[in-house]
Amino acid sequence: MEPTHSTSRLHAFSPGSPIRSGIPEHGRIPKYYAVKARIAVLVDELGEGGLLPTERDLAIRYEVARETVRQALRELLLEGRLRRHGRGTVVAGPKLEQPLSLASYTEGVRRQGRNPGRHLIGLEQFSCPPDLAGDIGVQTGDPVWHLERVLLADDERVGLESTYIAVARLPLLDSEFEPDSSFYAYLRERYDLRIGEADERLETVLATPREALLIGTPPALPMLLIQRVSRDQRGVPLERVRSLYRGDRFSFTTRLSPGKTPG
Amino acid sequence: MEPTHSTSRLHAFSPGSPIRSGIPEHGRIPKYYAVKARIAVLVDELGEGGLLPTERDLAIRYEVARETVRQALRELLLEGRLRRHGRGTVVAGPKLEQPLSLASYTEGVRRQGRNPGRHLIGLEQFSCPPDLAGDIGVQTGDPVWHLERVLLADDERVGLESTYIAVARLPLLDSEFEPDSSFYAYLRERYDLRIGEADERLETVLATPREALLIGTPPALPMLLIQRVSRDQRGVPLERVRSLYRGDRFSFTTRLSPGKTPG
Repeated sequence: MEPTHSTSRLHAFSPGSPIRSGIPEHGRIPKYYAVKARIAVLVDELGEGGLLPTERDLAIRYEVARETVRQALRELLLEGRLRRHGRGTVVAGPKLEQPLSLASYTEGVRRQGRNPGRHLIGLEQFSCPPDLAGDIGVQTGDPVWHLERVLLADDERVGLESTYIAVARLPLLDSEFEPDSSFYAYLRERYDLRIGEADERLETVLATPREALLIGTPPALPMLLIQRVSRDQRGVPLERVRSLYRGDRFSFTTRLSPGKTPG
Repeated sequence: MEPTHSTSRLHAFSPGSPIRSGIPEHGRIPKYYAVKARIAVLVDELGEGGLLPTERDLAIRYEVARETVRQALRELLLEGRLRRHGRGTVVAGPKLEQPLSLASYTEGVRRQGRNPGRHLIGLEQFSCPPDLAGDIGVQTGDPVWHLERVLLADDERVGLESTYIAVARLPLLDSEFEPDSSFYAYLRERYDLRIGEADERLETVLATPREALLIGTPPALPMLLIQRVSRDQRGVPLERVRSLYRGDRFSFTTRLSPGKTPG
């Protein structure tokens, strides 16, 4: 779509520039932001994987306090333009682009030439609360599976996914299902179940301490939360899924056409 | 989809709970987060528009430092569960739900019973840079319009939108177009132009100082950035649009079905 936007937006100050320009019209710029803009230029020059000078060196180079450099770096880290690597800071690669579609996470990541993986956090049964019952087609109190997995791309932890589905649908889930494999492939191959339609809601949230710990991010990193409610190929309520993706590592793409009237 | 998730996620600690639980398994919780969870309960009790006690009163009530309360409030503000109102802090309403569709911002907001508006920041011509030319169907150096507007919902500033389109397509844009009206309605009514297909990319970014100033948000508020490249009903490249929505005020919804293969 616009692969260059994130590398160029900070240092394009011309008024009609087709990129996000960061400088207020009144011309007063917070000092940390001026430093951020200069570091962003350096990031472009270094390229992916390039090692950034230390905080101390950057403070000397730009003649500012280390705290000012730290604030600039913090934003560049939150935005996914830099990442920590051991004790240093390196230029991050582009964000993963995940299509908004019924395809599974596994397929989406594979399509970008990355190796998808899942790491099981927990699979347990609980008693269905009222606000979940309708979405998955059971009565309040019926047994429900909660499958929680960390999402991996090339062994990097990039997200956290919780699936809720009736135990009556998949009675043998805990003994049959390989937790690091595709859940949708299991539904298809074992039960001939396919997703017929799903409603999704996307928003940005901050990682909770537990989520940050599981995904290995700083707490309060902006995350993309996608909540999905799916029906099977016959239109029967099937599952609710809550997927949390690192905001610094993911973008989502979709193609819109006039025929599509989203819910 | 799941209207209750945001009001209940902080105080649901049972392991199988179908809501985001914030407590790490090892049980150690940052102090500010424990305070945040307690304030979140209070937020639910108060309901939309309810006035929160002062920072000082909350610090006394929970027997913590004011800085701890401040950090908890800061996250609740960034997440859109609270908002500043004059000198106080009140419980915010639910996020606006904007469908991902070819419908305009105007239509999306109206559908939720809110009053959409736009406030013109600038309309100017510039010379097309190479990375924009293909998307809007012109040669590098050809004149291009940049239309920049603040998005309003019930007079609240909620986003910032930049549209790039060839001057050759809309030679009279600056004299004919009413900048607080729907751009897509203008395309349709004046030139019989409709959006035939669009590719969108969604991600989370931090507001720049200029954006924060224009939208009236704290700097570095997480925003949802949507970049759209559209073709007209005949498949000819038409426009590029960059829309920035307050992450604390917006969510996006879409309905997925097997026929849909996003780009």
